[in-house]
Amino acid sequence: MKAPDLGIRMGRYGHGKRNSIADLGVKVGHSTIIEGEDIRTGVTLLLPPVRNPYEERLFAGVYTFNGFSKPIGFVQIEELGYLETPIALTSTLNGYRVADALVSLWAGANPEAISVNPVVMECNDGYLNDNKKRAVGEEHVFEAFKNASLDFEEGSVGAGTGMSAFEFKGGIGSSSRVVEIGGEEYTVASLVLSNFGKREDLIVAGVPVGWELRDYPGRGLAMGVRGSVSIVVATDAPLTSRQLTRLARRAVLGLARTGSYGHNGSGDIILAFSTAQTVPTGKEVQAIGFLPDDALNRLFIAAVDSTEEAIVNSLLQAKTTRGRNGRVRYALPVEETLEILGRYGRLSKA
Amino acid sequence: MKAPDLGIRMGRYGHGKRNSIADLGVKVGHSTIIEGEDIRTGVTLLLPPVRNPYEERLFAGVYTFNGFSKPIGFVQIEELGYLETPIALTSTLNGYRVADALVSLWAGANPEAISVNPVVMECNDGYLNDNKKRAVGEEHVFEAFKNASLDFEEGSVGAGTGMSAFEFKGGIGSSSRVVEIGGEEYTVASLVLSNFGKREDLIVAGVPVGWELRDYPGRGLAMGVRGSVSIVVATDAPLTSRQLTRLARRAVLGLARTGSYGHNGSGDIILAFSTAQTVPTGKEVQAIGFLPDDALNRLFIAAVDSTEEAIVNSLLQAKTTRGRNGRVRYALPVEETLEILGRYGRLSKA
Amino acid sequence: MKAPDLGIRMGRYGHGKRNSIADLGVKVGHSTIIEGEDIRTGVTLLLPPVRNPYEERLFAGVYTFNGFSKPIGFVQIEELGYLETPIALTSTLNGYRVADALVSLWAGANPEAISVNPVVMECNDGYLNDNKKRAVGEEHVFEAFKNASLDFEEGSVGAGTGMSAFEFKGGIGSSSRVVEIGGEEYTVASLVLSNFGKREDLIVAGVPVGWELRDYPGRGLAMGVRGSVSIVVATDAPLTSRQLTRLARRAVLGLARTGSYGHNGSGDIILAFSTAQTVPTGKEVQAIGFLPDDALNRLFIAAVDSTEEAIVNSLLQAKTTRGRNGRVRYALPVEETLEILGRYGRLSKA
Amino acid sequence: MKAPDLGIRMGRYGHGKRNSIADLGVKVGHSTIIEGEDIRTGVTLLLPPVRNPYEERLFAGVYTFNGFSKPIGFVQIEELGYLETPIALTSTLNGYRVADALVSLWAGANPEAISVNPVVMECNDGYLNDNKKRAVGEEHVFEAFKNASLDFEEGSVGAGTGMSAFEFKGGIGSSSRVVEIGGEEYTVASLVLSNFGKREDLIVAGVPVGWELRDYPGRGLAMGVRGSVSIVVATDAPLTSRQLTRLARRAVLGLARTGSYGHNGSGDIILAFSTAQTVPTGKEVQAIGFLPDDALNRLFIAAVDSTEEAIVNSLLQAKTTRGRNGRVRYALPVEETLEILGRYGRLSKA
Repeated sequence: MKAPDLGIRMGRYGHGKRNSIADLGVKVGHSTIIEGEDIRTGVTLLLPPVRNPYEERLFAGVYTFNGFSKPIGFVQIEELGYLETPIALTSTLNGYRVADALVSLWAGANPEAISVNPVVMECNDGYLNDNKKRAVGEEHVFEAFKNASLDFEEGSVGAGTGMSAFEFKGGIGSSSRVVEIGGEEYTVASLVLSNFGKREDLIVAGVPVGWELRDYPGRGLAMGVRGSVSIVVATDAPLTSRQLTRLARRAVLGLARTGSYGHNGSGDIILAFSTAQTVPTGKEVQAIGFLPDDALNRLFIAAVDSTEEAIVNSLLQAKTTRGRNGRVRYALPVEETLEILGRYGRLSKA
Repeated sequence: MKAPDLGIRMGRYGHGKRNSIADLGVKVGHSTIIEGEDIRTGVTLLLPPVRNPYEERLFAGVYTFNGFSKPIGFVQIEELGYLETPIALTSTLNGYRVADALVSLWAGANPEAISVNPVVMECNDGYLNDNKKRAVGEEHVFEAFKNASLDFEEGSVGAGTGMSAFEFKGGIGSSSRVVEIGGEEYTVASLVLSNFGKREDLIVAGVPVGWELRDYPGRGLAMGVRGSVSIVVATDAPLTSRQLTRLARRAVLGLARTGSYGHNGSGDIILAFSTAQTVPTGKEVQAIGFLPDDALNRLFIAAVDSTEEAIVNSLLQAKTTRGRNGRVRYALPVEETLEILGRYGRLSKA
Repeated sequence: MKAPDLGIRMGRYGHGKRNSIADLGVKVGHSTIIEGEDIRTGVTLLLPPVRNPYEERLFAGVYTFNGFSKPIGFVQIEELGYLETPIALTSTLNGYRVADALVSLWAGANPEAISVNPVVMECNDGYLNDNKKRAVGEEHVFEAFKNASLDFEEGSVGAGTGMSAFEFKGGIGSSSRVVEIGGEEYTVASLVLSNFGKREDLIVAGVPVGWELRDYPGRGLAMGVRGSVSIVVATDAPLTSRQLTRLARRAVLGLARTGSYGHNGSGDIILAFSTAQTVPTGKEVQAIGFLPDDALNRLFIAAVDSTEEAIVNSLLQAKTTRGRNGRVRYALPVEETLEILGRYGRLSKA
Repeated sequence: MKAPDLGIRMGRYGHGKRNSIADLGVKVGHSTIIEGEDIRTGVTLLLPPVRNPYEERLFAGVYTFNGFSKPIGFVQIEELGYLETPIALTSTLNGYRVADALVSLWAGANPEAISVNPVVMECNDGYLNDNKKRAVGEEHVFEAFKNASLDFEEGSVGAGTGMSAFEFKGGIGSSSRVVEIGGEEYTVASLVLSNFGKREDLIVAGVPVGWELRDYPGRGLAMGVRGSVSIVVATDAPLTSRQLTRLARRAVLGLARTGSYGHNGSGDIILAFSTAQTVPTGKEVQAIGFLPDDALNRLFIAAVDSTEEAIVNSLLQAKTTRGRNGRVRYALPVEETLEILGRYGRLSKA
């Protein structure tokens, strides 16, 4: 169950039908890899709602809050402002194989094209997973591509299989918000791969849940604090890449409200894109429609709130996982969390 | 009284002796300008703890979270990484006269020098103040310079005279934190000029105080949401300008926890500097000492927590102010705020 | 006379009717200030071809190649991507008074508005001018505003009055190029304030003119190499602010071809804007037209070549000037320059 | 033969013993892959002069002039300012496999480490090479690693095998400069992978060689102008990562002087690093030595001139190559080039 189903509210706007990035038509596919004692990893693909992302490029923007991270494809998006492949999330050190597999996917679909800019974001799942084995191969990317769906699982799946957040089990989480601007409805949604934070720092809806659960079992960090978080924000509002970069930046405010301190070793990166229109090409003047900057505030609020909730949703849906070296990451205990939230007066009545 | 004096805690580290930027030896001077019905403005100077900031340059970094702002001097600090004047805070449109006055101050003290980079940050106090009259003159900058002190007032003084935050009275606030790294104690402090936010968004120590006080009188925004916040972070930890830029960025996480949504019209900018050493000059190799990036986490936490508290402190210390067009900005009602915090289980016992 | 009039060619595209930024309808006004022995300075205003630049905002982008510079207004243009005042060029330390005068101009024309972002770029004319006296006042800005014209002077006028380049007299120079894209004609023009470079580094049309003239009299730098160059690029091609930032960056390639080494103390900054359309406002989706990135190459070439020529034009049109401390900056000797170019096979036949 | 051996001079400083990046102790290894009619590609590794680049990290900075490029590892270098693997150059689409091979190399040498940031830069050799076949495998990276040497070949080798520049054969080129600062000698060297430019734009030592050779056979571009250039600058001067980023930026000025217009599709990216010292780690204050910014001008000049020459050297040393679809890239005709330079008065006497 996600936060609102449990009476946990972030922000004042309502969410979309699925309360996830699927509300934008984005399909999500996972490949979950669990082998022996020490492989707990995977890959997750986000498919923009177009037939061929290389031919139907979507405006995009990226923002690096803390660049202790190895994203692939960010430099070109900063320059040109568009996306041309699915977005992949995976485990550190596996990113290059995943990018190579995205090239294979693209090459198959675009025999005449000569270059592409695959996009991969990563976190380090080394606490539970032996990520140096680089278990993610081309076949896993193809599998995730094939099973992509509007009805996708969250929590300890795909890229989230081995991730940890606040010394609980982390992984994939998503959430959406619907806002009205100038008489039109727009949706903003976030999908996160959560893998950051120390236990005592966890905040849920303003409440110091991590501090209250500081003695709950399962604490421990791999090689100090090597966490990270990858965030994807999507919207159907027509925005330019400059504006999407601004939207991406707001995700940091939602991240902050879950207790992130932006630790030195935490790669905190965000990619935002709009499904509203494709990027024109050619040698002649083309028209695009976009919302003026004056109209962006509600989209910014939606990005903050949906990101905050997506991170909490990743915790609420992840399952206790045993991994390498006998380590166990416990799921955030939902009962106790609700009890704490109730104690602090932060549970909404259904 | 500041937050800790009222039993409001942000973060787990203790503060310095004065719980302000003065804990770094930074002197702060105000000139408060109140004239007739419509002038409620001023200027605040921060004097780094050196004899002559032009000759004893301090390492500095800047970060622009939302650049709907008119800071002066940021381009050169980004390139060269140091500070060479006091830092001025003032009201929009007055910034150029304030920068010119900083040039005068510098010229008097450095007869042989040929160029300087004055630093001014600004927010728009137009709700209470007729800022187009540009009431801040050279004499006010000189006055602020002269009365700078380690014992300075916070709230509705100096640059904070006419500022509003969360539709309450905003202004100057400061806070500090003391951390231990590698056996040494370091202090990080923030000083803010708060002038942003809608009433219902205000969060204090995780509690939705603004929502609870949404019907408290005095609501209203000038020309929509034109707020902003200027933040200065200082530390005695020896950091390079690259690291200070990273420290500046963390202030955004503290800002987020008070309820900022980074509204389109909110210029959210940060300057960080270190008092630990001066920038070497000359044509020969020079040595500096600095903390490796691995050692920065506690400084990051301190920057987040001291910024969050500095914003709350600006609200707690500002006084109800009547300004132009008969408008009134009420001080945040402290009794009610404490009652709400108590109800949400967030008041520490003394 | 400008370069083409003398048989000096840069690039292969032709120029517009006036071979200057006036080809875009931009009016340029100067105020030249010469007083006693030691004041040789001024201010230059560029007026975009709109009735009120605050209400009819033009898309713009900025690029800082070397940020040892004190531009005013760049932070907001980076965030929002538009211009809202005339662009002022002046001497270091005078920039704040000039910005304040732009505020006055704006306030007079926009009584209802509450904030503005004046744009000022500066170079240090301290070799000939006592710039610490800050001789540029509001009246000079108003004068430049009033006398702005499509027929404006170049060389040692306005902001260029006291500038030096390659140890010759520098100042204002402009040039334009006309290109065809997708069946349409577009113009790109540059206007520079040149104040950089050591004598022996000057290159004209690929020829080491500075080296050949290394023993020509008048050498000397003020306090080492404190030069800078401010560059404005304008076009009537419809471009977004992202694209205008890319266009601005190309000006550096033209700068390089005149012999710049980007010295440490040289503030090398560029602002580009498009006259094609105004920035839409409001809360509803708006359409803009723009050229796809695929179509930009000729505009890039035009920006490189017009910037290279504008710098050479500033040298060709500046006049020998005597200033403070008995110093003399000689005009680039045109006869000798042509002789050298002829010797290197680089003079076009008329 | 390199430029100086032919009497072609760029700049006024002398070069180091080998006139290449080997003058800094950097070893360069190539794997050249030529198969059938359509594979003309490879990989080039630059090995910093340390035993283990992961343990002995060198300060580094990156600069993206035009980001139509897919570099790997740049985001982390921007944040942290150091290098931790060899630098690989290769062909577009092959970069991910090369990065993965760098991970293998690192994993073998650092069994205890948990994460690494491989650095790969790429250009598109699609005119001569079928780069969608991604012919570069792990074994080629290992081969390049093994054969790395101070005595390395330039021109059509390794990553340069299939590259084109100015519609001539491009590839690997290197050059160095030696300067004196504060009584000490420092070396700056560039190594480039050249793959950009239209024929008529080529400038050699200020002379329009490309224009003169516009009718020389072999013209043609793959899918329009898809060129790029990757540049590595190394120095033994002790510089911080902030300063190395400034040094990297100067390489653009050298690039400009060879005729680059920074075409839309040209990924123009630079990485600079210093061999002077390793980056300290730990939790305690560490000392580093560095040159103040005032002392950088000669290093900047050296970076400009060595980059200009390195590009010319890549052309002078590349060999005529036949590739896919019967295409032929001719080597720059050295005799004709020298004749043209002589005609324009730009050949130095031996």
